[in-house]
Amino acid sequence: MYFIGEFMNNTRILLASRPVGLPKAENWTIETVETTEPGEGEFLAEVLYISLDPAMRGWIREGKSYIEPVGVGEVMRALGVARIVESQHPAFAVGDHVVGMSSVQKYWLSDGQGVAKVDPALAPLQKFLGVLGMPGMTAYFGILDIGKIKQGDTVLVSGAAGAVGSVVGQIAKIKGCRVIGIAGGEDKCRYITEELGFDGAIDYKSESLHPAVHKLCPRGIDVYFDNVGGETLDVALAQLRLNARVVICGAISQYNSTTPVKGPENYLSLLINRATMQGFVVFDFATDYAKAGREMGQWMAEGRLQAREHIVEGLETFPETLLMLFDGRNQGKLIIKV
Amino acid sequence: MYFIGEFMNNTRILLASRPVGLPKAENWTIETVETTEPGEGEFLAEVLYISLDPAMRGWIREGKSYIEPVGVGEVMRALGVARIVESQHPAFAVGDHVVGMSSVQKYWLSDGQGVAKVDPALAPLQKFLGVLGMPGMTAYFGILDIGKIKQGDTVLVSGAAGAVGSVVGQIAKIKGCRVIGIAGGEDKCRYITEELGFDGAIDYKSESLHPAVHKLCPRGIDVYFDNVGGETLDVALAQLRLNARVVICGAISQYNSTTPVKGPENYLSLLINRATMQGFVVFDFATDYAKAGREMGQWMAEGRLQAREHIVEGLETFPETLLMLFDGRNQGKLIIKV
Repeated sequence: MYFIGEFMNNTRILLASRPVGLPKAENWTIETVETTEPGEGEFLAEVLYISLDPAMRGWIREGKSYIEPVGVGEVMRALGVARIVESQHPAFAVGDHVVGMSSVQKYWLSDGQGVAKVDPALAPLQKFLGVLGMPGMTAYFGILDIGKIKQGDTVLVSGAAGAVGSVVGQIAKIKGCRVIGIAGGEDKCRYITEELGFDGAIDYKSESLHPAVHKLCPRGIDVYFDNVGGETLDVALAQLRLNARVVICGAISQYNSTTPVKGPENYLSLLINRATMQGFVVFDFATDYAKAGREMGQWMAEGRLQAREHIVEGLETFPETLLMLFDGRNQGKLIIKV
Repeated sequence: MYFIGEFMNNTRILLASRPVGLPKAENWTIETVETTEPGEGEFLAEVLYISLDPAMRGWIREGKSYIEPVGVGEVMRALGVARIVESQHPAFAVGDHVVGMSSVQKYWLSDGQGVAKVDPALAPLQKFLGVLGMPGMTAYFGILDIGKIKQGDTVLVSGAAGAVGSVVGQIAKIKGCRVIGIAGGEDKCRYITEELGFDGAIDYKSESLHPAVHKLCPRGIDVYFDNVGGETLDVALAQLRLNARVVICGAISQYNSTTPVKGPENYLSLLINRATMQGFVVFDFATDYAKAGREMGQWMAEGRLQAREHIVEGLETFPETLLMLFDGRNQGKLIIKV
């Protein structure tokens, strides 16, 4: 039995109120409480890394989405990597490393549902929140199963330097596509072309999107992988090729909007071009995560798939660190090291 | 050789200028010219019926769509049924009835490209412009190949009393779906429920759409077949079920708009519901028209598929008759009897 002492007080971040627009400090509470000892069929784990994702903005919005919202007064939902420090669960032992919905807290009491073990010998633990975690799986199934890329396709990706977009582009390159990424700022554009091997990059902060896409995709777009929505989606729709696929992964430009979502004015391009716009949620592919993880692990080992993480230290930085996602300050998968 | 006399002067309608908003009288010219005698590999046909379709608004808009626009000063494009009066074409004989892009004119000179013979013994000639013509084919391939309906699906159709929508709903009923139609006015609503067997109707002129759809599709929508766009599309998107399909066939509410097209604000419902929005153009299914025609002919013979036409007499009424499509005055497939 692990010793439960004062040092095992649990620090956690709660949703204090629903934000209007960008989440502010006042929307969060930080509190410290005693950890609860695990009962039969439960384990207690020390959370080591917490994943910060654009999807979080949806989780704290009122109303049903693909998942129930986080309630006001509840601990903020998050994926985390943790090490088990006490266990009454037959499938998990002290010392095991696990990934799951740990929430934004220091100690996580779990019944094991939706929790997967990870092997720290395979990859640094933070990779299991990035390229080998939800963002990587989102990229993999989004571009392969929804985007249905084929060799020779022209693929346009927005949020291209992000945790999802950077993997989308690299997988498309592995599959023989021509890949153009849209990202914010010179550094990110250089990163995706020089380090990740994209064929071209568009800096949306300094370039006009429509002519830039036209110049880099002169024959049009076969697959557009959309992480941002808004004007970027409209520019892409206007330049689709016949039978194009538009993958709706997210719409980060709209998540904090206090006005109605901007609908894509150019959606009739779907008709003209016999094109498809399809949404997806990565959880639907859970039964194939392991297979995808093996394939991506192989690509990483061969040096064909890279990923970087942007790690910020300290659980208490959560309210401020989260904002980096929305102003684009993070360079790679955003993670808090607890 | 047929006698070519004065009575074979050709009357035709030309696009005089591109309309802004609804097409007006001044956008058209009517003129009478001498018919040209058919050369080698051509035929001359007397046009009997001309089809008026919402797609025409797209054809007279500047800029490439799925088909080249009609040029200013050119004869207006239209599908028609005609009887051949003179032929130098090996595949077509005098007396044959044909359907094809006859344009809005009395006599049609053709090289036979894209022209199909029709049998007046099978169905009244005007049916080949409606249920057995482009609108019927659009309905058939749209609801079956794009909508992928299955028994038990809840299907919502807009423009439900129109040439396409009325056939969409009846095919969905034949396939065992629950079908709700949106139409304008009590007469049209009564027509689709009492005569065509729809399970329910919503009168968009007198009912608030969102609650009406919610009431008639309490479990949500599996397939939405969209002919109208605008607010109706948004209402449908907001009430999709998991894995729903949205078929983009047209957007008649937007065709005459002088402001930018209203993009569907609720498009992120595609993500939440893992849904697909897909456009299509009926011409892509041309190789299967005959098969579809046989199946629909069979359903008509069995009394399971009905269609009505709204016939207006006189080629010269074209500019005014076209407007009926946009204010919803037509009751059934709109056709001019020449």
